Amino acid sequence: MDTTAARVVALDTYDIRFPTSRELDGSDAMNPDPDYSAAYLILRTDAADDLAGHGFVFTIGRGNEVQVTAIEALRPHIVGRTVDELCADPGAVSRDLTGDSQLRWLGPEKGVMHMAVGAVVNAVWDLAAKRQGKPLWQLLADAEPEWLVGQVDFRYIADALSEQDALALLRHGRDGRQARRRQLFATGYPAYTTSPGWLGYSEEKLTRLAKSAVADGFAQIKLKVGADLDEDIRRCRAARAAIGPGVRMAIDANQRWNVDEAVRWTNALAEFDPYWIEEPTSPDDILGHAAIRTAVAPVKVATGEHVQNRIVFKQLLQAGAIDVLQLDAARVGGVNENLAILLLAAKFGVPVCPHAGGVGLCELVQHLSMFDYVALSGTTEDRVIEYVDHLHEHFVDPVVIRNGHYTAPTAPGFSATMLTRSLTTYAYPHGEFWATDLAARPGGVDPTAEEVAA
Amino acid sequence: MDTTAARVVALDTYDIRFPTSRELDGSDAMNPDPDYSAAYLILRTDAADDLAGHGFVFTIGRGNEVQVTAIEALRPHIVGRTVDELCADPGAVSRDLTGDSQLRWLGPEKGVMHMAVGAVVNAVWDLAAKRQGKPLWQLLADAEPEWLVGQVDFRYIADALSEQDALALLRHGRDGRQARRRQLFATGYPAYTTSPGWLGYSEEKLTRLAKSAVADGFAQIKLKVGADLDEDIRRCRAARAAIGPGVRMAIDANQRWNVDEAVRWTNALAEFDPYWIEEPTSPDDILGHAAIRTAVAPVKVATGEHVQNRIVFKQLLQAGAIDVLQLDAARVGGVNENLAILLLAAKFGVPVCPHAGGVGLCELVQHLSMFDYVALSGTTEDRVIEYVDHLHEHFVDPVVIRNGHYTAPTAPGFSATMLTRSLTTYAYPHGEFWATDLAARPGGVDPTAEEVAA
Repeated sequence: MDTTAARVVALDTYDIRFPTSRELDGSDAMNPDPDYSAAYLILRTDAADDLAGHGFVFTIGRGNEVQVTAIEALRPHIVGRTVDELCADPGAVSRDLTGDSQLRWLGPEKGVMHMAVGAVVNAVWDLAAKRQGKPLWQLLADAEPEWLVGQVDFRYIADALSEQDALALLRHGRDGRQARRRQLFATGYPAYTTSPGWLGYSEEKLTRLAKSAVADGFAQIKLKVGADLDEDIRRCRAARAAIGPGVRMAIDANQRWNVDEAVRWTNALAEFDPYWIEEPTSPDDILGHAAIRTAVAPVKVATGEHVQNRIVFKQLLQAGAIDVLQLDAARVGGVNENLAILLLAAKFGVPVCPHAGGVGLCELVQHLSMFDYVALSGTTEDRVIEYVDHLHEHFVDPVVIRNGHYTAPTAPGFSATMLTRSLTTYAYPHGEFWATDLAARPGGVDPTAEEVAA
Repeated sequence: MDTTAARVVALDTYDIRFPTSRELDGSDAMNPDPDYSAAYLILRTDAADDLAGHGFVFTIGRGNEVQVTAIEALRPHIVGRTVDELCADPGAVSRDLTGDSQLRWLGPEKGVMHMAVGAVVNAVWDLAAKRQGKPLWQLLADAEPEWLVGQVDFRYIADALSEQDALALLRHGRDGRQARRRQLFATGYPAYTTSPGWLGYSEEKLTRLAKSAVADGFAQIKLKVGADLDEDIRRCRAARAAIGPGVRMAIDANQRWNVDEAVRWTNALAEFDPYWIEEPTSPDDILGHAAIRTAVAPVKVATGEHVQNRIVFKQLLQAGAIDVLQLDAARVGGVNENLAILLLAAKFGVPVCPHAGGVGLCELVQHLSMFDYVALSGTTEDRVIEYVDHLHEHFVDPVVIRNGHYTAPTAPGFSATMLTRSLTTYAYPHGEFWATDLAARPGGVDPTAEEVAA
């Protein structure tokens, strides 16, 4: 079939769950036992080369089926469209999905339905980048500023960022991009690692992993805090001793506190020189973050992995509530909304240090930071992408970390494609792993139900 | 079976959709063709009297199946519990559902998953009120302040409302409640009506319905605006002429505008003396509402039907962003979170004028306003509950409006129970109405898919 006439012929979904809770990987003060999961989709086309776009929402277990159902609700908007049309203007797809007035009622632009939009939009970008034969960061860095501005929905953010602002930022961002591209290939993009700091780890494991993070070239590590203050003091002391004074140590409360608690707890850990306090309180509390920031300086305030959309990020910036903006590739409405968020951050001069980890979030978000470095903010100063060494083996183009830096991906696409073998093994509840696991349990019960009842 | 030992034996769900888009009922600038729907649930018990708790999320059509799936994800938390335990402390149920760490990732506390929590929590309150043989407003008004405070989750709002604040407000609210209860039974609770103002209606229909609203005793009407300014000027002029200067006329933009647009458009309609401008911009934009409020005074700013939780309401109040708080019975996490919101409004002295209409929202929310009047704020001054004359015929205990006022319900429960006949007729897609309707279409296609493609 002629590529020009190729169409999307199916939107297939997969409920993929990894049994990570058994190792306490990913445990924190709010999330004691996550089963890292992906509500995964493939846009299949009838192109001769089997071109397909992949995307997903990261979840932590129960409810992954709700997220899959939400992705399926978007199917009529996509299936039947030509690949040409989708790839020429992902922004039109984004506006079409976000603007479905009946589905919009379920948000608007937040939670399950908005993340579903993000996954489909990201799959369209994966398709577009594969079709152009470029990694997504490169596609974005090569794009004309005018076209990129057309990819952004300025609704509800125009009071902080106009189209003219965006165009000026992108035009300025192009200066020197060839040199930065060479630099990116030479050294990569700085990373920090959360691997030592999960709450469920022993002090011995924490110390060992913190030392090896420094030895591996990471200039920043992160510790989970917020469950028990005495314990946090011990853990921060051990971590600081392990890494020495020259390495940054961030702490992360995963929304555990009220405003007053956040201030007291952070200040009680100040002697260990934390670089930032992450998610000190609800991601919805803009004014709360602003109050906390004033009270814990010089410790920086960071948030974003649960910030629902560009409108909340806009206000966090307007209110001077954050020092560090932690966008997430799969929380908001996809690449288009993240372009808006990167532009807002550039306008306000706030560094972006993306959230990653989970399933495939490192793979996705590196493209956004690398585009930002090459063609928007133009700097990696005080910027790091989170890195966690989990589950990369399930991806066709896994991230490559060298000397504490993300290596620039070169394979076409958004690095979103999971191995077929992983999809069939970890599909819930009928994939090989889960079928075997469930059959081995007393009565073969659904583990989700069992854990809730326990 | 002994009532004391009765348990919840099933959580049954229903995807109920009414074909309202065919009449343009409910049309506004953001929602041109809603099919009013309910993701409905019944908590069935093995009590001898067939005691059951009913709850639902209101949606406007497509995606109702996503909402149903989300409700089903909560089933393991509820089924098997004793009725005694659930009814003794709905707050514990609320915290349990909201606190499921894996499901929490899908929000947190917003969108599809949070509305699902709200529907289940509301069904538990329906169960509790039926069991006590009281309408819910009466159960709440009779409850001890200490118990009510225990029903509220102060997480993320304690900086604006402490437990001590709440207790003081509730103790003060009890003074004179017997007299207010008598007053409530005598005159009812003031209502306003949106029935004349849907965007799809002709000027003739608008004028006729506005006049008959005044004749029916309503002291306030509401018009949808925001699609076309010249048209809005014509419609506002016609409505003001129809109702005269002494009746309040609110206008509602359903989030159509950016901040600057909201200011310009509202001020362009100021000559018609609008009482409030509702949803001038995104419900997430706290700072935007504050800016709009300053710029459009003395026109009041109102929002809330899409405000996701108590944390955003807290900030709208802290920032002085709204004059009128429009809580919704089925948008947030149920009665418990609405208690928090009523308490916040009382603390800040902002009147609550609930959003209603849709499917069953009038039935639910009257209980919250009546409790507020009898035992919390103690006043109906500048307070009105929205009223729309749609779909009440599907409820066992429909609202009763007399002389522009909601009559106090007396039947036990939360007025949430739909007629079994309505459930079987409008279940999508296999209920009698939809099965017939779909069969009559060319090819018997799914109407949802067809409308999206059109």
